[in-house]
Amino acid sequence: MRIPLDRQSTLPLYRQIETALRQGILSGGLSPDTRLPATRQLARDLGVNRITVETAYAELEADGLIASRVGSGSYVLPACSPPPRPPDSPACPPWPAWQQAVHARSELAGPPLPAPAPAPQTISFAGGTGDSRLFPADDFRKVMQAVMRRDGAAALEYGDPRGYAPLRGTIARVLASQGLQAHPDNILITAGSQAALALVAQLLLKPGDGILVESPTYSGALDLFRALRLRVVGIPIDERGMQVEALESLLARQQPGLIYTIPNFHNPTGTCLSSQRRRQLMAVADRYGVPILEDDFVGDLRYEGRAQPALKALDPGGRVIYVSTFSKMLMPGLRVGFLAVEGPVYAGLAGLKRASDLATSNLIQRALEAYVTVGRYQAHLRRSCQIYHKRRDAMLRAIRRHLPAGVRCDPPQGGLFVWLRLPASLSAGQLLPLAAEEGVTFDPGGRFFPDGAAGECAASPWGDCLRLNFAVQTPEAIDEGIRRLGQALRRLAART
Amino acid sequence: MRIPLDRQSTLPLYRQIETALRQGILSGGLSPDTRLPATRQLARDLGVNRITVETAYAELEADGLIASRVGSGSYVLPACSPPPRPPDSPACPPWPAWQQAVHARSELAGPPLPAPAPAPQTISFAGGTGDSRLFPADDFRKVMQAVMRRDGAAALEYGDPRGYAPLRGTIARVLASQGLQAHPDNILITAGSQAALALVAQLLLKPGDGILVESPTYSGALDLFRALRLRVVGIPIDERGMQVEALESLLARQQPGLIYTIPNFHNPTGTCLSSQRRRQLMAVADRYGVPILEDDFVGDLRYEGRAQPALKALDPGGRVIYVSTFSKMLMPGLRVGFLAVEGPVYAGLAGLKRASDLATSNLIQRALEAYVTVGRYQAHLRRSCQIYHKRRDAMLRAIRRHLPAGVRCDPPQGGLFVWLRLPASLSAGQLLPLAAEEGVTFDPGGRFFPDGAAGECAASPWGDCLRLNFAVQTPEAIDEGIRRLGQALRRLAART
Repeated sequence: MRIPLDRQSTLPLYRQIETALRQGILSGGLSPDTRLPATRQLARDLGVNRITVETAYAELEADGLIASRVGSGSYVLPACSPPPRPPDSPACPPWPAWQQAVHARSELAGPPLPAPAPAPQTISFAGGTGDSRLFPADDFRKVMQAVMRRDGAAALEYGDPRGYAPLRGTIARVLASQGLQAHPDNILITAGSQAALALVAQLLLKPGDGILVESPTYSGALDLFRALRLRVVGIPIDERGMQVEALESLLARQQPGLIYTIPNFHNPTGTCLSSQRRRQLMAVADRYGVPILEDDFVGDLRYEGRAQPALKALDPGGRVIYVSTFSKMLMPGLRVGFLAVEGPVYAGLAGLKRASDLATSNLIQRALEAYVTVGRYQAHLRRSCQIYHKRRDAMLRAIRRHLPAGVRCDPPQGGLFVWLRLPASLSAGQLLPLAAEEGVTFDPGGRFFPDGAAGECAASPWGDCLRLNFAVQTPEAIDEGIRRLGQALRRLAART
Repeated sequence: MRIPLDRQSTLPLYRQIETALRQGILSGGLSPDTRLPATRQLARDLGVNRITVETAYAELEADGLIASRVGSGSYVLPACSPPPRPPDSPACPPWPAWQQAVHARSELAGPPLPAPAPAPQTISFAGGTGDSRLFPADDFRKVMQAVMRRDGAAALEYGDPRGYAPLRGTIARVLASQGLQAHPDNILITAGSQAALALVAQLLLKPGDGILVESPTYSGALDLFRALRLRVVGIPIDERGMQVEALESLLARQQPGLIYTIPNFHNPTGTCLSSQRRRQLMAVADRYGVPILEDDFVGDLRYEGRAQPALKALDPGGRVIYVSTFSKMLMPGLRVGFLAVEGPVYAGLAGLKRASDLATSNLIQRALEAYVTVGRYQAHLRRSCQIYHKRRDAMLRAIRRHLPAGVRCDPPQGGLFVWLRLPASLSAGQLLPLAAEEGVTFDPGGRFFPDGAAGECAASPWGDCLRLNFAVQTPEAIDEGIRRLGQALRRLAART
């Protein structure tokens, strides 16, 4: 135990020791039943006389904070009152100026905390993942067990910063089965696809640089780009995806250093970029020399219609940085994503990855490699497609049945989301508390727009919007949830 | 499967499909025994006639690339030659200009790859972790199993971006047992301590800003700060740690935005900052309003001498950002580190963490929480201290026995490293290949200096240096390894 002692102080050493331990006990850090170091040990650690430590312990014992048990040492006693939260107490000196400066920075204003869990009976259409109940957690547990037996300590070392080589091979095969060629040496494994987006934005851009995004787009990407102090430029989207026709003038005017796009089952709108626009996007970006960051978060989760190639599959070489993840299809909690790109940028990204976190958990990578085969992946995909297809249909049916006529949506051909547009007079932000009262929740549309304001959402040709995740609820719960949403909408309309 | 089709092309659709599949097979992405999609399925996916797909498959079969098995579909056949690496082939168009620009950036020059594994008989004193063979991997496997059974799918969700709350509680208790008070709500769990350093540097500094570091210091921190394009300013170090006397003039002249320090068992030199200098450092940093980033990577791994308080324990509130990890003591492959800080900066760091990777692996955090208790941590610490203490002694003995008289070192009181200083005429870089021939390896000193050049190491008052990790070898291997190092040194001296 390293207790700070000030040998120049007029406060006796035993008092300094006693004060430090008392603080530890009262703050709850030294919890009840914690064994304090033996007096001889602590005296040696701190370079003081053993009597000094014994005196300190005796004071604490007299105050009822610790008790000595014969032959086994001194233990912390349960406190009478709950431990106070120490740091913000008025006795502390004011925060230094650099802390105030951090506090004042607007790009960090977003809530760092997860949204509070909704009430137990609430039906939630919020969140951006698939249904984790579908994941065969028990099979994965067995695989994890087998890998830990097989690899022992090797699974607990750092490993290759680019990612576990056999897993990169598996990813290359899964991509090939989707029609996308990537060599394992051009694949970089990251802590979820979010970390892949962060690496690319950090490597290619600096604070103040522009980044072009669909408007609306994935809110986590917006949070990231704002945190990196980038200038986020929105390009409108319609039912065929990004309005590529507007791209050239935006590139010329705003000179963004990167184009971030979700061409398949776009988050939050669910639209797919048309084939023609895909080729246009590639051509214009190439002409202006702007790299494309393709986020293919649920690319193969298609329920109907014709498959579109990934932008990466149209890339003649080194134009597109392709990012995907196992989080959405399999398990968010694993935090394993990846990117694929050819050319010198790969080494730059691998170097930045190593500098940022050395490597992604070797153990998790090995377990995932043992679990995922092309066959297993495809079987899981087929099963997910069947189930989510039914849920999407249930949601579209429920919307027609329960929601007022002024509410519109474009049926998505795949993915996880339905994007709902409210009549011009209604606000998604005002709807949210009423919906919570009815027992249903969703993600209001404002957070998906580059300027963050619900105003932009309302000002868009679509009216105010909200995102519904249909993948996480059963058809029955979807019907009931949308019925509740209809109730809330009618109450809101009656007020307006 | 999403194959890019160009319906405007003069190339027939069946030929486009065949070409895409052929590329996949020849590149190895579609590996032998992969089952191709059923023709009807692929025709539906791509929106083409089934005969088109059948024609493409027939061509591939005629070329011996696939075979159809009656009633079960078409499978990829083993290739005759190993798959070529496609991306850098001369047929590709040149890399776009932005790729060239990344390639030209000097701060990314560091090797992204891990060092090649040394020959099997080589005794390695390289690397910065403890001995992973000491870790009870089997106990941890059982805990992981129990947690996965207990938590099921909940362990596979994103979880709290600040870190799993019970693990933050455990960390607070472990810190308290070390004499350091931190509330669980002021602890942020990160993907290893490297990610904690990255978050702090990214939040508080922008490219071009200065960061003060000990010279030499942890090479991974230097890699990070260079990758973030920071201006790295070195402050010399002696046997009592950072030469704090030089701090004030450096702060005035260079105006760094952050002080990065390893006060305990410094990497690479093994020194400890003296108590007096700790207080001086706190006072000067506070006067100049510069935050301190304290890296306490092996703070409690002390074999002798008096314990020094962490800088964080001297912090009146919000001056010091404390970073530590389970990687060194327990298992590097888990990638779980943490930071502790009070004040508004905590929310900024938590927000940036969420924007960067959403959350650290929930599963690993839960397993660690179930595994680590204060008692278990302390038992593991005691055992590690005993074993590493013996290894340090073995190394100091072997150095006296086998190395030429001109080689010097300050015996470290704890930690993992001995820092060896060569006679002025000898170069660690030249020693390395000779040592490899003798069957021993180490980390040459140059990489630990802010300017990266061995020149600075040689120009320091210490002569050229090298770092030896004594924690990863048994006493017998240490004796033999140092004997080999002595051989290499004598060969080098004979040459010079």
